[in-house]
Amino acid sequence: MRATLLHGERDIRSEQVADPQLSGTGKDAIVRVTAACVCGSDLWPYRGVTPTDEPRRIGHEFVGVVEEVAPDVAKVKAGDFVIAPFYDCCGECANCRIGFTTSCLELGWFGSQDHWGHPTDGAQGELVRVPHADGALTVVPAQPDDALIPSLLTLSDVFLTGHHAAVSGGVAQGSTVAVVGDGAVGLSAVLAAKRLGAERIVAMSRHASRQAVATEFGATDIVAERGDEGIAALKDMFDGIGPDAVLECVGTKESMDQALRSARPGGQVGFVGVPNGGPELPMRTMFSTNVGVRGGVAPVRNYVEEILPEVLDGSLAPGRVFDGEFALSDAAEAYAAMDERRVIKALLRP
Amino acid sequence: MRATLLHGERDIRSEQVADPQLSGTGKDAIVRVTAACVCGSDLWPYRGVTPTDEPRRIGHEFVGVVEEVAPDVAKVKAGDFVIAPFYDCCGECANCRIGFTTSCLELGWFGSQDHWGHPTDGAQGELVRVPHADGALTVVPAQPDDALIPSLLTLSDVFLTGHHAAVSGGVAQGSTVAVVGDGAVGLSAVLAAKRLGAERIVAMSRHASRQAVATEFGATDIVAERGDEGIAALKDMFDGIGPDAVLECVGTKESMDQALRSARPGGQVGFVGVPNGGPELPMRTMFSTNVGVRGGVAPVRNYVEEILPEVLDGSLAPGRVFDGEFALSDAAEAYAAMDERRVIKALLRP
Repeated sequence: MRATLLHGERDIRSEQVADPQLSGTGKDAIVRVTAACVCGSDLWPYRGVTPTDEPRRIGHEFVGVVEEVAPDVAKVKAGDFVIAPFYDCCGECANCRIGFTTSCLELGWFGSQDHWGHPTDGAQGELVRVPHADGALTVVPAQPDDALIPSLLTLSDVFLTGHHAAVSGGVAQGSTVAVVGDGAVGLSAVLAAKRLGAERIVAMSRHASRQAVATEFGATDIVAERGDEGIAALKDMFDGIGPDAVLECVGTKESMDQALRSARPGGQVGFVGVPNGGPELPMRTMFSTNVGVRGGVAPVRNYVEEILPEVLDGSLAPGRVFDGEFALSDAAEAYAAMDERRVIKALLRP
Repeated sequence: MRATLLHGERDIRSEQVADPQLSGTGKDAIVRVTAACVCGSDLWPYRGVTPTDEPRRIGHEFVGVVEEVAPDVAKVKAGDFVIAPFYDCCGECANCRIGFTTSCLELGWFGSQDHWGHPTDGAQGELVRVPHADGALTVVPAQPDDALIPSLLTLSDVFLTGHHAAVSGGVAQGSTVAVVGDGAVGLSAVLAAKRLGAERIVAMSRHASRQAVATEFGATDIVAERGDEGIAALKDMFDGIGPDAVLECVGTKESMDQALRSARPGGQVGFVGVPNGGPELPMRTMFSTNVGVRGGVAPVRNYVEEILPEVLDGSLAPGRVFDGEFALSDAAEAYAAMDERRVIKALLRP
């Protein structure tokens, strides 16, 4: 089959690799990928921020059709159209049951290895072995229309990561919200906040094309300023004290600092930006302002069943974040387009 | 009048000082103190952890009877028995209204200065001027029985600070909870968690007398181990993953680290320990576990009206944390008893 491999800094290639096989655990399935995509976090190794020692498979977001299941798989069968979360989880352990499948006691990652140490496929390929088919995969009731594929694909990661930012930030009916970051996750957080009933949503963005999507998704205000100026603008908009929730969708020390200082006293920062460079949070600031901080790697598998019906009936269309579509064999161009911010998020079709 | 002054490290004196006068703002009241007490945070300057350059008034927790009010005071009148929060707040600004009087835009501190820069009295004295009488003071409907004084006094700070830890930790019906810290605030947090419906409450304590109070207050389990051993013990007690909420009532880097690593994935740390030495929170750990952190200086004025009826009808008796009572003139002995952990918390009577 064909799959994407990262060879080194800005060196992405589409190559022939061996088809995946069932591993022998009895719990896995092979899925033929209908659509995959490039994540902002894929750009870190692409840009060389994290080094690549040898060619490796990449990508962790996909939807597709089950080709084959192992003997102990009960809920998923060949022919099912499925949504995979960006990680592998058992669905049965204490952490999975309590709502945090990202802390599954048998956790595995795509493009890396599963709980048992078997290598796993990257999602940017024609076929992917899913180690816990019953725990990880969500079956879509019928074969979806092609027009729904982008929105269904966002349930693999990006929209539900934005949703996790909003949930972690405590967004509820009537909340006032600011979103730091205008990438695909930040835009998804705008849509998620709108869906949860936020009354006023400020998108922090200085790019016209992204401001336009933010507005489509429900942003009521745009603030282009950053840092101290951005904070001052936000305070001004909300009684001089700031919004209830700030959704941090970047992951740098600067963006987290801005988020923490923007929220009103007693407000909450919901964060999903992968901490880049290990920023630490100042407890003194949190103590004096009572601004809480909550978030992390999004347990998308725990959210997908709640959101899926709204995508299927067309009332929620998070797939709008995909503004570039590429053949899997053109993955190099998809990465370059994301890297150069020519597209918000690139969809890949095998 | 007589008041307590801190002169330097372990040098507390009871002295004659000038009676307070109304300041001219029109908003203040003079209160005759019925009971005050010593806070764990008073021990920091007492121990010389924070330096004392010149003799200063001290104490911030008190209940008493209003002697005199300024012309614009409308809700409070001479003769009222009142509970003061440990800070002064206006009760009317955006932050006071949204639930965080500790971020009042006209905030002041006892034993320091008010919003207008006038010096303020410490609570450990016979009379205290309250800068915003209407905003800060809660009037008790009738003169309370003497037996209720200790419990009413806990609504000035300690019980409601424990309550804030529990609220910030997201404690609700059925929660599993661990409390780090067996001082008066930690014990109050046990009682607050019980009141909020926690199903299982672990007190982390190695002192028999404090374990006994924790058990009276509703602790179902005691763990004497600290650090990695304490964390392992907690994980074992809760499905191998840890409790839902960990209430951090100490404020050191070690105690916060223990709290953060004890909570289950997706759990929450509620913290009220004043950060000592400015510990910072590791975002990587929070990101990977989804453990949230929320808390800070407790907005007790926003909680007192909810809790007061339960104290007045005797169904809640947080005053049990006072296990030593001293005359105001014996403040030096009260401080020594707290410092040497001979008492959990010292009550002072003028």
